[in-house]
Amino acid sequence: MPQKSQLDMGASLDMAPTPHAGNIFPVTWVAGRVRLIDQTRLPAVYETVEIGTVADMARAIKTMIVRGAPAIGVAAAYGMVLALQDCLTAPIQTQYKALEEAADLLKASRPTAVNLFWAVDQMLVAAGRVGDASLHDHLLHTAHEIAHADLETCQAIGAHGLSVLPESPQQLRLLTHCNAGALATAGYGTALGVVRAAWAAGRLARVYADETRPRLQGAKLTTWECVQESIPVTLITDNMAAHCMAQGLIDLVVVGADRIAANGDTANKIGTYGLALVAQAHGIPFYVAAPRSTLDFTTPTGAGIPIEERDANEVLHIGPTPIAPPSVEVYNPAFDVTPAGLITGIITECGVYAPSHLSTLKPSP
Amino acid sequence: MPQKSQLDMGASLDMAPTPHAGNIFPVTWVAGRVRLIDQTRLPAVYETVEIGTVADMARAIKTMIVRGAPAIGVAAAYGMVLALQDCLTAPIQTQYKALEEAADLLKASRPTAVNLFWAVDQMLVAAGRVGDASLHDHLLHTAHEIAHADLETCQAIGAHGLSVLPESPQQLRLLTHCNAGALATAGYGTALGVVRAAWAAGRLARVYADETRPRLQGAKLTTWECVQESIPVTLITDNMAAHCMAQGLIDLVVVGADRIAANGDTANKIGTYGLALVAQAHGIPFYVAAPRSTLDFTTPTGAGIPIEERDANEVLHIGPTPIAPPSVEVYNPAFDVTPAGLITGIITECGVYAPSHLSTLKPSP
Repeated sequence: MPQKSQLDMGASLDMAPTPHAGNIFPVTWVAGRVRLIDQTRLPAVYETVEIGTVADMARAIKTMIVRGAPAIGVAAAYGMVLALQDCLTAPIQTQYKALEEAADLLKASRPTAVNLFWAVDQMLVAAGRVGDASLHDHLLHTAHEIAHADLETCQAIGAHGLSVLPESPQQLRLLTHCNAGALATAGYGTALGVVRAAWAAGRLARVYADETRPRLQGAKLTTWECVQESIPVTLITDNMAAHCMAQGLIDLVVVGADRIAANGDTANKIGTYGLALVAQAHGIPFYVAAPRSTLDFTTPTGAGIPIEERDANEVLHIGPTPIAPPSVEVYNPAFDVTPAGLITGIITECGVYAPSHLSTLKPSP
Repeated sequence: MPQKSQLDMGASLDMAPTPHAGNIFPVTWVAGRVRLIDQTRLPAVYETVEIGTVADMARAIKTMIVRGAPAIGVAAAYGMVLALQDCLTAPIQTQYKALEEAADLLKASRPTAVNLFWAVDQMLVAAGRVGDASLHDHLLHTAHEIAHADLETCQAIGAHGLSVLPESPQQLRLLTHCNAGALATAGYGTALGVVRAAWAAGRLARVYADETRPRLQGAKLTTWECVQESIPVTLITDNMAAHCMAQGLIDLVVVGADRIAANGDTANKIGTYGLALVAQAHGIPFYVAAPRSTLDFTTPTGAGIPIEERDANEVLHIGPTPIAPPSVEVYNPAFDVTPAGLITGIITECGVYAPSHLSTLKPSP
């Protein structure tokens, strides 16, 4: 079990942790550095790493020590503060130049999740608004605000998610893909925020967790989060979801998102699109849970969302074990796009929206 | 590479190997024992094991040293011969009793693939037809016939498969699931028989192989077979299939089968059903390739097909690597049922049948 002292986000934010927020905080600011839960080592090892430079933060995002669209946004915001810390005694022009270079570096780390770009831009806007003397304090305050707002956002998503749960059965079986949990956010989670809210309200019988190849975030992270809080969870391989639905085991699907286009098309972890298709075939509601910062009104449809391709070795090896002949060609897209038509609703901190009504939602400030 | 001498099925059958049959034969009879390619060790290690008793054969089927519906049938037929060899000097009643016990043992090894039951019953029928003196020779001859017929059947399936390939594009991209290849049959393969025929006819651009969790037969076996014969192959995780289809990368899906009910509902490796649903959503033809011995006219619909559930550890570990917290609950059905309505056609050794016209196909003798 994680040590409480390592996870106490409240201390670093100078505010008490919100009640019922769970106890998993993947990104915390501690004494001028960023402490990340190393998500590449879970569930075998719970370990944190301390990040002291923006270059190390970009690397941590790229290698998925920190992952999950909202968590990447929070980490990138603190990464901007780290960049500034490296040149606090330099002339102010040098400091602003360092921030611009840090923004480019962070934005180049992963292409799909839009929260990364949103958070970095928030930090640049904040930097432009203050006098030189208070730049560092103001940026740190902004990063803290982004982190704290994300936690509150997730809790609001959970509360709104309760409103769309089917009335029957009383105890629902929810299926989720990848990890859109506390580990993927500042805490509490988006899709797992809905799960946590359902569990707290006595509406949850069980979570089915897709293992989510190739990186196995469902097997490694979602089950781990559930086990920490004694939420009943059943692990399945991704290709079992349709069979589970045919067997009547699933009442509702809820997933996170990495970027939602203006028309509601949603990029999320590879496999989400196939899951939405099989849910539709069984008449099972399919919800996306995401903060407004995941909305990208500048991208009209899913066709405009860049899809990251990752290294073949993610597929070819699991731990030290090669699972295929080494010479085999691999296609490894990290995300896919679920067309808006397959999505029952998008659960945000402002309420639940039909994909076709997203335009009525104010963009994230 | 396998040594040719280990794989020369012709010698054991007293007939020359059929030209273009490939060179992978998972089940061969060698000097009174059955030599199996150990499919649990591929692709890292090519190794054969020699099976001398029916108990060891039942264990080899259960642990998937030999797997694939037709190959299990062939292996079980030889398993019956092994049972008889253990009591050749006993009274004839004892020999028949040993055969009946062997049949029960083999039939209990795996529940879903019907070829196992069919082959064992073929052997029992053959045993009932001969005089006591020639029982062993007759059973060995019958097992050889089952093996040789399966190889010819697979080649006929390949030839019939050619007739349903879309005319355009000239060079097709075929997607397959699990391994319905030479390793899953006496040789050549069913779904991969169609792939081999398409490759030989210059109609194949590339095979996409689903890795097929949890046992990874696609990653481990299908890619290995393709690499042996230089057939272009791209490995994907199961949850990438829908995205590949949306990207226009797939022209046709072809899979094997473990049991086909009278109405055309088809049990096959877990994930096949979801794959059929996403193929339908993209208007991509979805074919099942299987010998008549996979047809079970005594089971009216897929609802009557028993679905094997296997050990949680198949999901929880990959090689020595645990991928989830050890306490997590797992659901591990080994097969699912694809409704006939999702199947474009069933490619058999007698031709290609719409699932609704299966009744016009004579049962396997």
